[in-house]
Amino acid sequence: MSQKTPVTILGATGSVGQRFVSLLENHPWFEIAKLCASDKSEGKTYAQATNWILSTPIPASIRDRKISSCTPSVKEGLTFSALSSNVAGPIETSYAAQGAKVISCSKNHRMDESVPMVIPEVNGDHIELIHQQKFPHGGYIVTKPNCSVIALCMALKPLLDSFGLEAVSVVTMQAASGAGFPGVPSLALFDNVIPYIEDEEEKMESEPNKIFAKLQNSKLQFLPLSISSSCNRIPVTEGHMEVVSVKLKKKSTLEALKDAWLSWKNPLESFELPSSPTKMIYYFDEPQFPQTRLHRDFDKGMAVHIGRLRKCPILDFKFTLLSHNTLRGAAGGALLTAELLAKKNLL
Amino acid sequence: MSQKTPVTILGATGSVGQRFVSLLENHPWFEIAKLCASDKSEGKTYAQATNWILSTPIPASIRDRKISSCTPSVKEGLTFSALSSNVAGPIETSYAAQGAKVISCSKNHRMDESVPMVIPEVNGDHIELIHQQKFPHGGYIVTKPNCSVIALCMALKPLLDSFGLEAVSVVTMQAASGAGFPGVPSLALFDNVIPYIEDEEEKMESEPNKIFAKLQNSKLQFLPLSISSSCNRIPVTEGHMEVVSVKLKKKSTLEALKDAWLSWKNPLESFELPSSPTKMIYYFDEPQFPQTRLHRDFDKGMAVHIGRLRKCPILDFKFTLLSHNTLRGAAGGALLTAELLAKKNLL
Amino acid sequence: MSQKTPVTILGATGSVGQRFVSLLENHPWFEIAKLCASDKSEGKTYAQATNWILSTPIPASIRDRKISSCTPSVKEGLTFSALSSNVAGPIETSYAAQGAKVISCSKNHRMDESVPMVIPEVNGDHIELIHQQKFPHGGYIVTKPNCSVIALCMALKPLLDSFGLEAVSVVTMQAASGAGFPGVPSLALFDNVIPYIEDEEEKMESEPNKIFAKLQNSKLQFLPLSISSSCNRIPVTEGHMEVVSVKLKKKSTLEALKDAWLSWKNPLESFELPSSPTKMIYYFDEPQFPQTRLHRDFDKGMAVHIGRLRKCPILDFKFTLLSHNTLRGAAGGALLTAELLAKKNLL
Amino acid sequence: MSQKTPVTILGATGSVGQRFVSLLENHPWFEIAKLCASDKSEGKTYAQATNWILSTPIPASIRDRKISSCTPSVKEGLTFSALSSNVAGPIETSYAAQGAKVISCSKNHRMDESVPMVIPEVNGDHIELIHQQKFPHGGYIVTKPNCSVIALCMALKPLLDSFGLEAVSVVTMQAASGAGFPGVPSLALFDNVIPYIEDEEEKMESEPNKIFAKLQNSKLQFLPLSISSSCNRIPVTEGHMEVVSVKLKKKSTLEALKDAWLSWKNPLESFELPSSPTKMIYYFDEPQFPQTRLHRDFDKGMAVHIGRLRKCPILDFKFTLLSHNTLRGAAGGALLTAELLAKKNLL
Repeated sequence: MSQKTPVTILGATGSVGQRFVSLLENHPWFEIAKLCASDKSEGKTYAQATNWILSTPIPASIRDRKISSCTPSVKEGLTFSALSSNVAGPIETSYAAQGAKVISCSKNHRMDESVPMVIPEVNGDHIELIHQQKFPHGGYIVTKPNCSVIALCMALKPLLDSFGLEAVSVVTMQAASGAGFPGVPSLALFDNVIPYIEDEEEKMESEPNKIFAKLQNSKLQFLPLSISSSCNRIPVTEGHMEVVSVKLKKKSTLEALKDAWLSWKNPLESFELPSSPTKMIYYFDEPQFPQTRLHRDFDKGMAVHIGRLRKCPILDFKFTLLSHNTLRGAAGGALLTAELLAKKNLL
Repeated sequence: MSQKTPVTILGATGSVGQRFVSLLENHPWFEIAKLCASDKSEGKTYAQATNWILSTPIPASIRDRKISSCTPSVKEGLTFSALSSNVAGPIETSYAAQGAKVISCSKNHRMDESVPMVIPEVNGDHIELIHQQKFPHGGYIVTKPNCSVIALCMALKPLLDSFGLEAVSVVTMQAASGAGFPGVPSLALFDNVIPYIEDEEEKMESEPNKIFAKLQNSKLQFLPLSISSSCNRIPVTEGHMEVVSVKLKKKSTLEALKDAWLSWKNPLESFELPSSPTKMIYYFDEPQFPQTRLHRDFDKGMAVHIGRLRKCPILDFKFTLLSHNTLRGAAGGALLTAELLAKKNLL
Repeated sequence: MSQKTPVTILGATGSVGQRFVSLLENHPWFEIAKLCASDKSEGKTYAQATNWILSTPIPASIRDRKISSCTPSVKEGLTFSALSSNVAGPIETSYAAQGAKVISCSKNHRMDESVPMVIPEVNGDHIELIHQQKFPHGGYIVTKPNCSVIALCMALKPLLDSFGLEAVSVVTMQAASGAGFPGVPSLALFDNVIPYIEDEEEKMESEPNKIFAKLQNSKLQFLPLSISSSCNRIPVTEGHMEVVSVKLKKKSTLEALKDAWLSWKNPLESFELPSSPTKMIYYFDEPQFPQTRLHRDFDKGMAVHIGRLRKCPILDFKFTLLSHNTLRGAAGGALLTAELLAKKNLL
Repeated sequence: MSQKTPVTILGATGSVGQRFVSLLENHPWFEIAKLCASDKSEGKTYAQATNWILSTPIPASIRDRKISSCTPSVKEGLTFSALSSNVAGPIETSYAAQGAKVISCSKNHRMDESVPMVIPEVNGDHIELIHQQKFPHGGYIVTKPNCSVIALCMALKPLLDSFGLEAVSVVTMQAASGAGFPGVPSLALFDNVIPYIEDEEEKMESEPNKIFAKLQNSKLQFLPLSISSSCNRIPVTEGHMEVVSVKLKKKSTLEALKDAWLSWKNPLESFELPSSPTKMIYYFDEPQFPQTRLHRDFDKGMAVHIGRLRKCPILDFKFTLLSHNTLRGAAGGALLTAELLAKKNLL
């Protein structure tokens, strides 16, 4: 009999849900126990209910599994939520109330005071906030940040540690997959740029302040940091590119920034989590790199890719940043968080 | 016999050259007299020598015209240069030395002291610099700025006039056509972002200072203005999108900026130049506009389109800007300049 | 007061409806009187209710017009239907029953015995079938065929007239716009081919038999003709490309086929209908033409473009065919039909 | 010391050469000994000389290897040629003359009488033709067919074995990567179909006759088979889709065809070659499959994917076929051939 931890996936048929199904296929610690989706999918097989859009096949063991509704049973365990934010809030709460350890990709609970919003390498210590949650049966909710925010904070963390941050200006070029499925119609995105993504700029301008917060007496002290963001949808399938300018607290040099990234000590390094990338940050000296199609999948799609570091005539420095929005930015990031929880015996 | 001014096109077979051919097809003032290209095209018909990529047909009157080499005759007249910057410099000089009135799309002479770099609505007065050029037979060189710079300066001009400018930060999402033909391989650009365009950022960070210069005693006094730019190639065919943040000299409001654009007095308005757009600036209140594919062709592709005006948490205000890079940004912009020269009796 | 014929558009906010609105903006004979759409749009302005996707602006005179529901009044007149086939059938019937002269883009009534399915140049004579329809107040229904079928029959008609047709094999590469809006999600179509379009092959294999029918004693005698079709959706915005092989009744030659196309006598030529293309058929000798992006918009998007004629080792000849699916294939084709009806004093 | 067979790659920096480098990174039997390219790359490191376009990194062990020119030494061994057909012919001959066992992706020697054109599963027995080649030192040339032909013959082989083939009509929708790098300009392919690929139709209409030839007395007896092909370039990065109609010698049924594919006995099955796909043929019952982006990478990109089997009103049956053109269709197919040669002790 399997010793793996059973997992429930909420929203299992959507684009992020599919990533969870794919990533969990041969996971060494976890295995899929329940696939939940909206009522109209209930009772269908996974293959029937799903408009599968990944370029790897539906895992054979999953094709014929029946879909359940998103209704918690008694004593739920590890639960990944890939639900739409239209419905995620109360469903996640109802699962936690039945003891589920919910790891959510949705925005609904991210700013709740006792809910950690976690990038494992950056603020894994925030996880202890779960002890302040009042759910019975050991239930809790942990969230992952917005996909563009995850990459941004991973790139900024070494700079914050070495030089301090005063201001960050960021312009994004985001992939179609960020809008889910069906998401953006092809007629609306082919040969086009849509210079607006609802709610996205608000998230980018507020979530980093919580992610970089200091825990003091079990309370988060948000980092004061000015952020300006402009978010654009462009015609690529996967991978968010971000152009970033930063103003640092300490004066620095191009070499020192590069060194801060390359020598940054990943606190998870010794944990050997199955979904950790080999390196968290890849730095490119070639001026034409990173590129969306070429680098998004490097290292399981779990790293960030930085290039084009140069001085900014207005702030201090600017650079370009790429990450995979549905792997590191969604399902992969949530899975890594679950692995960290497992390592800390919190599952 | 036609009373139209005869026109020579240098680099007539390339992507910008094709735009000149297309725009001049039924022009009320000008008509194509000579089509010049590299030696390997010499003697071929235009249809044979050209890999035509526009979605209107090659004008019937041009198909069978013979291509000449780029060698000036005595007493050249109005000459549009769409030459590659690899060869444009000395060829344009040799034409001017034979009396040609050269209007160039190339970068080679843009920063020459007595060469005006003209956006007709913005700095048409700079044209008088040509009187300082020492070419015989009335020859001169006038340039148009870089395509991304043209749109940027058209959007900034009303703000400069009303509020003064201290700093501008701009991130571009540029079309394939900006790289000419063959330009970027499809395998290099499909489903991808290339975060680097050689030389482009240098142009964006220096040309506006000359364009916004004041003429004093027939000398240009460059505008002091800090500009930071990051230029990206994305998979669209035509149309450059720019995300702009500005710091103004005077404090202002969202309403005042919008009003500055909408009420800006176009100095060309009374001239009725054939290539002038009906309005120089279109402003969109809808948050999802402007969009590349939807708006690039509005008003003959000669206007700029602005939207998403909002406060910037770091500088003062930010907005999004679109223009057509091979119409307003190249052949159309040069043609409008020639029309202004004609109106001023300088042809 | 305007002497133009007032027009009702059903389904005015959709992708084909938008084409009707755009084409009727400055039409010399017709003008928009009513814009009708689904109940959820009723009472909104056209600009509010419409996700406009064309690269020309919403006509200024239309932006603020109110949307009505699709409910016929007494004494309706010329009515274009761009309704989804889910609802078109009974609504069109209800309009005809109130005297409307309905010209429909939907499939619902195409195969009705007394309903002509018209390509004006090909089978304009079928229009007389309307006299067999039993609607009161002079109402009737005329349909246009499927978009891929229109182009195919326009290309085949000269061959049918000159050589007779025995068999036609056709493989299509169809644009996103053929699926309407929102239509195909970008994640489903970027960098992809979808080798299936519901119902499309059935239409291509049956509609030409009716279009090419002979009228005998006011009855259509369907043309016996074997057709095999395979329909694919590919990542282009507009324009359907078709690869066609034909088996003719008479033996022929490459030159004779080309001549059949070039010398074909268009029966509408003397009518000077406003939406007629200058030429119905463009033939290309260059092997790389026609191309979707280059030629779809030629001649108002109302012609067909043929190239690559060569012998077929299995049937007799093969060639490549392009047309604009939402202009000639939808709104433009229906408008041309209305113009022919006007010319025949049937409006 | 490594016991792996050393390998030379000719044309190592091009798009197919990159695939060879990538596929050989951890190959259990072979290892890269020499990287050869054109004279202008000679002496550079692989990373300097190569415009790497794959989404996996350049193997670390290869980045700094020096490029040699394509000049054979004495006693060359296993040699993969990814050279352009402009130069491949004589270079491959010169290598074979020095004892190289050349496996070529180029067309130059494909039709030579004693040169086998091999798809390992389909006509691996043709390999014995090499014994008729007259090169010294054990040198020989083996070729792989055109990329579209490989997929077509893999799909047809089970039908040929079970029912015999009389005629095949095929229309292709081919990826940008098939044209190499730089290949097709993005401006020429975005939002477009190019209905012509030089030489491609000639290959598709002749190579299958040799591939399906019977060996009799060490001579190939070409299969008589009529093939009609039309080849199109469409805007996808990788993966060729083919629409196929077949006329069989024996009457058959849909079920029997499907069964012929599913029950076909792969003659390589027991060989356990490292590059063999798990299954050679994947069959889809879902009407919308296979799709280019979803299925091209399945099973290492080495299988073919078939769907949409149905009756053809003109020939007998029709279906849709997908394969990966630079994996199975180029480098992967050549590598599998080398593995078969190794298994047969012919290296």
